[in-house]
Amino acid sequence: MTYCVGLLLRDGMVLLSDTRTNAGLDNISTYRKMFTFEDPGERVIAIMTAGSLSVTQTTMARLREAVEDPESTPETSILKAPTLLKVAEMVGSTLAQVRADVDEKLSAMNQGASASMIVAGQRKGGAMRLFLIYPEGNFIEATEDTPFLQIGEHKYGKPILDRVVKPTTSLADAKKAVLLSMDSTLRSNLSVGMPLDLAVIERDALRVSQTRRIEAGDEQFRAMSEAWSKALRDGFAQINI
Amino acid sequence: MTYCVGLLLRDGMVLLSDTRTNAGLDNISTYRKMFTFEDPGERVIAIMTAGSLSVTQTTMARLREAVEDPESTPETSILKAPTLLKVAEMVGSTLAQVRADVDEKLSAMNQGASASMIVAGQRKGGAMRLFLIYPEGNFIEATEDTPFLQIGEHKYGKPILDRVVKPTTSLADAKKAVLLSMDSTLRSNLSVGMPLDLAVIERDALRVSQTRRIEAGDEQFRAMSEAWSKALRDGFAQINI
Repeated sequence: MTYCVGLLLRDGMVLLSDTRTNAGLDNISTYRKMFTFEDPGERVIAIMTAGSLSVTQTTMARLREAVEDPESTPETSILKAPTLLKVAEMVGSTLAQVRADVDEKLSAMNQGASASMIVAGQRKGGAMRLFLIYPEGNFIEATEDTPFLQIGEHKYGKPILDRVVKPTTSLADAKKAVLLSMDSTLRSNLSVGMPLDLAVIERDALRVSQTRRIEAGDEQFRAMSEAWSKALRDGFAQINI
Repeated sequence: MTYCVGLLLRDGMVLLSDTRTNAGLDNISTYRKMFTFEDPGERVIAIMTAGSLSVTQTTMARLREAVEDPESTPETSILKAPTLLKVAEMVGSTLAQVRADVDEKLSAMNQGASASMIVAGQRKGGAMRLFLIYPEGNFIEATEDTPFLQIGEHKYGKPILDRVVKPTTSLADAKKAVLLSMDSTLRSNLSVGMPLDLAVIERDALRVSQTRRIEAGDEQFRAMSEAWSKALRDGFAQINI
């Protein structure tokens, strides 16, 4: 499994992904699930992936190849597409096509492959936008009412987001919220695992403002996790029923 | 959907279930999902149900009918079965049979029906036992290492249980823990809904020690829910990253 979460806030976007992939329970590996594309000052795009690794890797490779093609056009490169909506459509159609190809290969074994993605970005002169792309290529977008999107193992980490994330949440609080959301998920589901990739895209920066890989032994993350456990236990102890 | 949780503690067992059932999103009803069987001083059994209502109702009706049959035997009545392990087997085999019957009826429409149950109980001279019965009739049992079992929409409410529930948790704290676990689930998933049914079975009481129906407007539950939200927000605010 996987857990990725993206927040669309007044001050910017905060993204967090884990890195665990597994084929069954006994074949566990570490793969990056967050990918960034930048044309600094013009455009920034970040994509997070969940689902079958063969689908997500091929999709990302095709998108990357199109960006790097010297003859790329606004129709083929997500760094040249006229709008972020168009970028979401391009990621969606690439994902849907790869998924259909892989699905066909697997159908002989009565198996299927699926994947979903979160696309975050901003182009010069445009708004920040955050999309969740479904396996079929259709998508939804984060709004003021629902300023976060999740893919993968999303349930364990949702209560904390439901309670603290608003469009006006500061970027510092947003980082804390996604890390605590991940912490709850890591504790409850072994198929989500460290290290983590964190990215912050500030509003109108048109580049990735901050990235951080948080390794398994990260002292700061461990301290935060313990402080949160303590805060929960203390809060629990104080409640009367 | 449904959310039911059972805790097996040194001092007793604490059970909580919601009451929402739905056929699709637009046909929502309220049905009790917690059922108790008592032979006070001799035996107490509580069963919580999740899944297709047609399966769970028929299963419970057959179990109840067998208990009330004046010619019931240790082979047919869960109030006469020699051990709680045998009770779990009887509930499992009844559930599996009903499920298979309903599944066969539905197969013509390419649909299926499934259900799972939690069985908690103690007989005179025996230990308290807590089982999770799978749709196929097999089951697992709560232990010191894993003192709680959940059925239905279990993920949202698991982090709080993971953090605070131990076999030595007091019954008062246990009630608080299951109510807060339910509170997180209610907030994040509309298909789990009030009212709630709470039951406590104290060790060696051999009867249901306490039952409480918590209605949608319950002032005490609302106050607890708000206190918990406040504790989470305060705890969140105090954490530094």
